[in-house]
Amino acid sequence: MALGEFDLIKRFFAQVSEASSDASVALGVGDDCALLDLQQNQQLAVSIDTMVEGTHFLPGTPADLIASRLLGAAISDLAAMGATPAWLTLALTLPGVDIEWLEAFSQRLAELCREHSIALIGGDTTRGPLTLSAQVHGFVPTGQALCRGGATSGDLICVSGSLGDSRGGLEGLLSGFECETHAEYLLDRFYSPQPRLILGQSLIGKASSCIDLSDGLLSDLAHILMASQGYGARLQLEALPISEQLLATFGEEQARQWALTGGEDFELCFTIPADKLPLLADLPVAVSVIGKVTDEPGIQLFLRGESCQISGTGYDHFMQNS
Amino acid sequence: MALGEFDLIKRFFAQVSEASSDASVALGVGDDCALLDLQQNQQLAVSIDTMVEGTHFLPGTPADLIASRLLGAAISDLAAMGATPAWLTLALTLPGVDIEWLEAFSQRLAELCREHSIALIGGDTTRGPLTLSAQVHGFVPTGQALCRGGATSGDLICVSGSLGDSRGGLEGLLSGFECETHAEYLLDRFYSPQPRLILGQSLIGKASSCIDLSDGLLSDLAHILMASQGYGARLQLEALPISEQLLATFGEEQARQWALTGGEDFELCFTIPADKLPLLADLPVAVSVIGKVTDEPGIQLFLRGESCQISGTGYDHFMQNS
Repeated sequence: MALGEFDLIKRFFAQVSEASSDASVALGVGDDCALLDLQQNQQLAVSIDTMVEGTHFLPGTPADLIASRLLGAAISDLAAMGATPAWLTLALTLPGVDIEWLEAFSQRLAELCREHSIALIGGDTTRGPLTLSAQVHGFVPTGQALCRGGATSGDLICVSGSLGDSRGGLEGLLSGFECETHAEYLLDRFYSPQPRLILGQSLIGKASSCIDLSDGLLSDLAHILMASQGYGARLQLEALPISEQLLATFGEEQARQWALTGGEDFELCFTIPADKLPLLADLPVAVSVIGKVTDEPGIQLFLRGESCQISGTGYDHFMQNS
Repeated sequence: MALGEFDLIKRFFAQVSEASSDASVALGVGDDCALLDLQQNQQLAVSIDTMVEGTHFLPGTPADLIASRLLGAAISDLAAMGATPAWLTLALTLPGVDIEWLEAFSQRLAELCREHSIALIGGDTTRGPLTLSAQVHGFVPTGQALCRGGATSGDLICVSGSLGDSRGGLEGLLSGFECETHAEYLLDRFYSPQPRLILGQSLIGKASSCIDLSDGLLSDLAHILMASQGYGARLQLEALPISEQLLATFGEEQARQWALTGGEDFELCFTIPADKLPLLADLPVAVSVIGKVTDEPGIQLFLRGESCQISGTGYDHFMQNS
């Protein structure tokens, strides 16, 4: 049988699959299905994310950056549930066969699979406009996953890392950076989200709710509050964690706006009873307390004790493009 | 929060999800991940399939037919492993929001989910050129799945249903039917593949290998033979199951060619020791014995006892379009 382009592509991913496989993979790429061994007393956590050229990334984006953005965003959903990554499937639609692109993409994919201990177990490759769907699968102890509903009045609201950087990177990419000093940092935050897996796993049994920040803090916090029987929140804007780099490049007001609404930071936002906060020790990422869950519905913003408002909320891909 | 287009789309699929959910779905659509209860002594079988407008179906194909083709093809991979369907995820990339399209698609999807007892547990909806990825998940008793490797010399080669109909439907769609009498039947075979789930499950413990016919009999049988340590096969062309409808519309020679190479029939091809064949009783689909596994590598074709050849093999999406 002649070696079609299709077989050539499969070869790249067969390599990734072999390199990332572990004992749970009874049968990997190459049959009608992958076969996977399950764990007792664990639930399976599953999430699928799609990225489309022109909607989620600019045409011409280097393949390794597409890989890091896709994987980072997808695995972040496992982090938000407190799950431990297990398996990855990849549906890849390509306009044609570009060996350099495939090499760069599959090499970065293999690195990320190793880094996050996730095995590529299957996929599909088709011809068409560049579109990538990654489905991640992880395990979480039965009944212990961090869900959105569970916040109660008085819980502290916390976020990891710094907020708004990803939006700063995107804006610089679209409009250019006036000052290039921190361009690399901000672009890296946009292209290479770091799923907060260890934090998520540490929050099990402590946090009352958790979400990863994909739409922007205000939107995502609203998802928590809606799922948690309609509680509200008070946020202290001066407590929002903002990086020096974002601050120096775009100024305080813009940085704060993006910290609230920027989207795609893929940090975790969680609520936790105050007495459990001290139990979070030795984390690999900073956690900031930014406010409190209230009985009164709605999100109220305070800056140095004064009530304030901002325009706009987090964004929605479809609304943004329509 | 204003109801964006995005939320509107989610609503359609939330309905499907609710309608198809079962006890194994601890948490369905609406959080960062779905949470799924697992079964003891079972392995998880997983497969993902993508369909792209213009590559896998013609622009303007009705949404309900896209749904039946996508689901039929995807679930067929579970049938080929002998697995029982459990969960479905759907990554849907749409050029815009077309309510009629979404209604027709989601309604057919819900019907198919009920028919095959598969629960829609999650997905992602993005804007871009029409592309659909469906991942199916099923359970199979540990160590019992029907894999491709396992055929041995002397095993009978069998196929279910009739072959070539799907290709006949496609050709009629592309070039028109000279005779319309059987157009509906052939188009239905193209658009609405029937995953052979009961047959697959019945083959557990009996068949030595199994695959679903997506690329065409010669290609797919070659996959079995390659996975089974390089055995070969002898096929009796007069034993190929060909429908009256295909025969009447396209004639014997063309029908036989498509039965061998047409692709996308989504019937099962399996090998089975001769003494186990009588154990297959009360099946909801006809099974035909079409040949035998041989020690000699390669696939040899015989018509009424005479060795013969055909031109071309099964097709490959990438090769066909390049």
